[in-house]
Amino acid sequence: MLRVGVNGYGTIGKRVTDAIIDQPDMRVAGIAKRSPSLDAAAARERGIDLFAADRDGQADFEDAGLAIAGPVEELVDRSDVIVDATPAGCGEEHVPMYRRRGTPVILQGGEAADAADASLTGRLNTDAARSARVVRVVSCNTTGLARTLGPLADRFPLDGAQATLIRRGGDPDQPDRGPIDDIVPDPVTLPSHHARDLNRMLPDVHTVTMAVRVPCTRMHLHAVTVRFEQPPDARVIRRQLAEEPRIFLIPGGHGADSLGALTVFGEDIARPRGDIWETCVWAESIAVTGRELHLFQAIDQRCNVVPENIDAIRAIAGGPGPAEGRGRTNEALGIGLTEHQPATTREPATR
Amino acid sequence: MLRVGVNGYGTIGKRVTDAIIDQPDMRVAGIAKRSPSLDAAAARERGIDLFAADRDGQADFEDAGLAIAGPVEELVDRSDVIVDATPAGCGEEHVPMYRRRGTPVILQGGEAADAADASLTGRLNTDAARSARVVRVVSCNTTGLARTLGPLADRFPLDGAQATLIRRGGDPDQPDRGPIDDIVPDPVTLPSHHARDLNRMLPDVHTVTMAVRVPCTRMHLHAVTVRFEQPPDARVIRRQLAEEPRIFLIPGGHGADSLGALTVFGEDIARPRGDIWETCVWAESIAVTGRELHLFQAIDQRCNVVPENIDAIRAIAGGPGPAEGRGRTNEALGIGLTEHQPATTREPATR
Repeated sequence: MLRVGVNGYGTIGKRVTDAIIDQPDMRVAGIAKRSPSLDAAAARERGIDLFAADRDGQADFEDAGLAIAGPVEELVDRSDVIVDATPAGCGEEHVPMYRRRGTPVILQGGEAADAADASLTGRLNTDAARSARVVRVVSCNTTGLARTLGPLADRFPLDGAQATLIRRGGDPDQPDRGPIDDIVPDPVTLPSHHARDLNRMLPDVHTVTMAVRVPCTRMHLHAVTVRFEQPPDARVIRRQLAEEPRIFLIPGGHGADSLGALTVFGEDIARPRGDIWETCVWAESIAVTGRELHLFQAIDQRCNVVPENIDAIRAIAGGPGPAEGRGRTNEALGIGLTEHQPATTREPATR
Repeated sequence: MLRVGVNGYGTIGKRVTDAIIDQPDMRVAGIAKRSPSLDAAAARERGIDLFAADRDGQADFEDAGLAIAGPVEELVDRSDVIVDATPAGCGEEHVPMYRRRGTPVILQGGEAADAADASLTGRLNTDAARSARVVRVVSCNTTGLARTLGPLADRFPLDGAQATLIRRGGDPDQPDRGPIDDIVPDPVTLPSHHARDLNRMLPDVHTVTMAVRVPCTRMHLHAVTVRFEQPPDARVIRRQLAEEPRIFLIPGGHGADSLGALTVFGEDIARPRGDIWETCVWAESIAVTGRELHLFQAIDQRCNVVPENIDAIRAIAGGPGPAEGRGRTNEALGIGLTEHQPATTREPATR
């Protein structure tokens, strides 16, 4: 039984914690937070040990009636693996402490690639994670692209890929983020950094990304074009994407043609918090012109890296090989919405 | 002096009317509307004759205290050219009436291409407009793309072009349009129709567009990639775009990195209604990877087809050649914001 500690209990941290609870071969060693919050109180109610990420903040927890099991270092010592889900840029500052204590760690995509021994890009590079002590799971946008490009690159010689990332401005609980009534190039200089991890993993596929932020809190949307060396067959592509468990091919003719429709669907099928871990590709959008494949896909930024975090925990702990590891994650979470039985082929995750 | 009538007095119609007033060789023969409105009242205050687009609606104008000069047919008879700026799909229904009365007409991009004898795509195809009786000015998005692709295609062998159109949901006075907190593929099937007019004008350039709608009322934003036959030089491209009067190369380092910043700038330089007729290309965004050029551009959907409507009026009336005609339009409107003197090189249009 792998004991996993989670440092940082925000949007990603709380979801990774829940996903660990769902794995038969893992248990939560505890979580660490900087300051008291409603979600920390809810975690305590569920019997999860709470550690203070900041020594000076410990008294605040006690004032808020939240029992603290100890400082974060104690959580690191009692864990076989740590998942660091602290805000972007903080994770790499913690790495020396994790290394000193000999606990392997999973960082998130907001950290610099060179802060880690290896980056795990969707299904790409899972092997490298097995020999690393610090593994970084790339960002939600890059993970979403890797899930689509990886299987295509496995099977076909690809020439290049391009994606416009239309990014949500902030999560629903981030009222101070923008934009309002605007479309903001971010960054305005091109190409955006998002493709960097992909280009590292797929050096022969010239991948370019361009990113904007818009007034939306739901999901990111990608307009993707992949250039093949030979004209592809749209039906073959469609079948191949349909076979990928972490891709949900949104069926046409069901009115699910917006992010709002997808989030309501996530609630209807009793996913925890309505999360859709899969990359959602609109089946109707898949089209070929010449040597190019075009498609639209949506990425639930709150949760789509959760399965890859679980894969990374198993890999860094020397668990089963990549394919078997991914299969265990999928099974435990109930991943595998399909185009023809979107709502019935999975068991809702319960806890 | 060309007498020009404007049928339809909404977002486009009122701007075309004002632009006609600014032309030394044109005057407004009158405007036609279906029902009374504040903008019709404002036009009457300025001494513009008002015609009833709908016979049954004439009494409504009189009830609202707005004098009607006659039915729309009378406006058509007293005009040398009609600009039809009625809602999408209505213009083509009026074509038989215009043809019967022998008045040439300019339609907008919401009408089907085959409703017109020729489509005017930005600077492309202005010549064909000279021998036509019904000319269609293509949509704001297509016009914006044609202004960028046209000059590049003139000078370089191009292989293909691709644009993701991130479209504003509605204009500021359209509170019933969406989306709210969403990103909507529109259409979800790919490619979108927007490139159709471009592919007709530039048959050798494989152009693909993908479009979404977002919660924004300001402008459209395009993420554009152009594939050249040979690797282009970013500095040469930049210089060439800077020379185009209908492209405003937004200077870097001025904080103008959002649509909101551009609309405030349009107000600051005393443009009528803050309109920015030029396609706005972020200079900082221009980048080359391999044989591909990438850039971000913004399109003010309320007004960017106004100059092309004026060009089309001159062309259909057998006026000067395309380049001279465009030059006259630019001069009369004060088009020509430049990267280095964005605010001082033009005379504000006055009326």
